[in-house]
Amino acid sequence: MKNIREIAKLSGVSTATVSRYVNKRGNTAPKTGEKIQQIIDKYGYNPNKLTTAIINGRLNDIGVIVQNVSNPYFSQLLDEITKYALLQNLNVVICNARGSRAAEKQHYQELTSKRVSGIIVINTTDEQTYLNCSIPLIALEKRILDFPKLKVDNRKGIQLLINNFSNLNQKKLLVIKSKTSNQSSKERISEVETKLNELKVNYQVQAIDDNFEDIELANVMLKKYDVVMCWNDMIAHAIVAKAINENIKLGEELEITGFDGLKLNNIFPYKLTTIHQNISKLGEESFSMLLELINNKQIQDVILDVKIEIGNTTKQ
Amino acid sequence: MKNIREIAKLSGVSTATVSRYVNKRGNTAPKTGEKIQQIIDKYGYNPNKLTTAIINGRLNDIGVIVQNVSNPYFSQLLDEITKYALLQNLNVVICNARGSRAAEKQHYQELTSKRVSGIIVINTTDEQTYLNCSIPLIALEKRILDFPKLKVDNRKGIQLLINNFSNLNQKKLLVIKSKTSNQSSKERISEVETKLNELKVNYQVQAIDDNFEDIELANVMLKKYDVVMCWNDMIAHAIVAKAINENIKLGEELEITGFDGLKLNNIFPYKLTTIHQNISKLGEESFSMLLELINNKQIQDVILDVKIEIGNTTKQ
Repeated sequence: MKNIREIAKLSGVSTATVSRYVNKRGNTAPKTGEKIQQIIDKYGYNPNKLTTAIINGRLNDIGVIVQNVSNPYFSQLLDEITKYALLQNLNVVICNARGSRAAEKQHYQELTSKRVSGIIVINTTDEQTYLNCSIPLIALEKRILDFPKLKVDNRKGIQLLINNFSNLNQKKLLVIKSKTSNQSSKERISEVETKLNELKVNYQVQAIDDNFEDIELANVMLKKYDVVMCWNDMIAHAIVAKAINENIKLGEELEITGFDGLKLNNIFPYKLTTIHQNISKLGEESFSMLLELINNKQIQDVILDVKIEIGNTTKQ
Repeated sequence: MKNIREIAKLSGVSTATVSRYVNKRGNTAPKTGEKIQQIIDKYGYNPNKLTTAIINGRLNDIGVIVQNVSNPYFSQLLDEITKYALLQNLNVVICNARGSRAAEKQHYQELTSKRVSGIIVINTTDEQTYLNCSIPLIALEKRILDFPKLKVDNRKGIQLLINNFSNLNQKKLLVIKSKTSNQSSKERISEVETKLNELKVNYQVQAIDDNFEDIELANVMLKKYDVVMCWNDMIAHAIVAKAINENIKLGEELEITGFDGLKLNNIFPYKLTTIHQNISKLGEESFSMLLELINNKQIQDVILDVKIEIGNTTKQ
C-alpha cells in the first residue's frame, strides 16, 4: 500500500494531480489518469495515510476533548492519538473537561471558534453539547448523537473473562462496577447478566465510588467471595491491594480480574488477569476515522477486537 | 482576603473602577479611591485570585506544553492546572510534545499563532524554542532562558530521605536514576553526592532506561544492596515489584524509596516511602504565577516545600 505522496512520485506527477484524480475533482488529462491508475493498481493506495486536506495545507489543529486527563486509560489513549497526529505533522490540542458539562461545553465552543478541523471526544458527559456541531467529530467510548463511534468489543471481553473461570456455578461471585458508569460499563454489565444467567451462576453486583486513584472499598467484603470481576484495571488493582492486606491468597483463595490492559500494569508486583484493549490501535483508528470524515468520506462505527491476558490473579 | 469582585461589591463600585484604582491606571475620583482603600485595608486584597485581564475579557486560552501526557506525574499536574483555570472560567489547551524537540516547537508555534494569553511549559526538551517568545511564560521543572520558574525543593527532599535511614554508613546503597535525566534529577543526584559524602557513606549509582511504564531493570542486582533510592515513584514501584518477585522482604532485607507522592500510589498493595510533592499546589501556583505575569507583575522564581511520607518499604 502506498500513500498519496508515493503514488505521485511513482506516477511522475504532483500530489495535487493525484488528489484531483482520485477525488474526481477538476480535470485530469486521460493519459495522466491512466498512468496514476496503473500505479494504484500495482501498489495499492491508502488514502487514510495522508489526506488531500493535509497536502493542500487546509488542515488546522485537531481538538480532543477528554473526560479526565489524569485517568491512566485516557492519558495513555491521548498519547497514542498525539503520536499518530505528529506522524502527519498535525497538532492535537487536548482539553480536559474534568467530568463537568459546563467545562466540556466551554472547551467545545473555544475549539470551534478557533476553527479546528475536527474533534475527537473521549467519553462525553453530555452529548447535547454537540447538537449543532457542523465539523467532523468522532465519539470514543460513549455515543454522541449520529456521529461515528469507535469502541472496543466490551461484550466479547466479558465473555472471554467468564469463559476463563472454571466451575463458576460453584463459586461466589462479586461484580464491582463504578457508580459513575458510562456506555462501556453498561454494555459490560448487560453482558455479565446475560452470560451468568445462561450459565446459572449466582452473583452480586456492587457499585463503588471511584475517581481513578480514589477508590472507596471499605464496604466490599472480600472474604465472602471466590471471584471478583472489576470494571477496570484501576479498581482491580485496588481490590488486589485490599486482598493482600487482608492476607487473602491471590488466585487461590480469591480470583480477581480487570478490564483495560493498561501499560501501567507492568509495574505492579503481580500480573493482573485482564482484557487487553489495543489502546494504540484505538488511538490510530480514531485519528484515521477523523481524517476520513474531514475528507467527506462516509464512515461506519468501528468496534475493535479485544483479547484476554491471563495473569496470576486467577487460577492457573 | 477578598478578591477584586468582593472589594468592588463592598465599596459599592464596579470591578473596573477597583481595577483602575489598584493598578493606578486612569483617574479615580478621590472619594471613591478613599472608599476602596478603606475596604482593602479592612479586608485585605488578593489580586491573584481574579486578574483585571479576566475581568475585562481580554484573556484568551492558556496553553500548556507538556513533555509527555502519559506520565502519571505530569497527567496529575495537568489536571490540577486545568482545575484552577476552570475555576476562573479560563480554557487550557494541552499540547503533548512526546519528548520531541520538533513537536514541541510545532506546538509552540501553533499556540502563539492562535494568540494564547500565556504558556506553561512542563519539562521542556529544548529551551531554545522559546528564544523569541514575547508572551508570558512559566517554566515548570526545567528552566527556560530567563522566564520565571517553578519547582519543588529537590534538595530538601533528598535530605529528608537520607535522614530517615538509620546507620546508613553500615549499609550497601544503590541510587537508581533515569537515563533521560532533567534538571530536577540533576539537583537530586548532586544533593545525594553532597549528603552521602558528608556522612561518609559508600554508594553506587546506576542509570536505567525508563519510559514511565517501560522500565528496564534486568541489570539491577537487588540482592547486593540494603537500600535502593529511586528517582521517582514509578521506578520505585518497578523496583518493589522486582524485589517481591525475587522473594526479598520489603523494609527488612531491602529498603526502597521513591520521589513524587503520586495519587496513584494509593492502589499499590504496600505504602511506598517517598517524598510528597504538593502537585495540587504546583498546579495552582503555576497558574497563579502566569496570571500575575499576564498582568505585567514582576515575579520571582518559586520553590515549593516538600515533605516525607513514611511507608512500609523502609524500616519502621
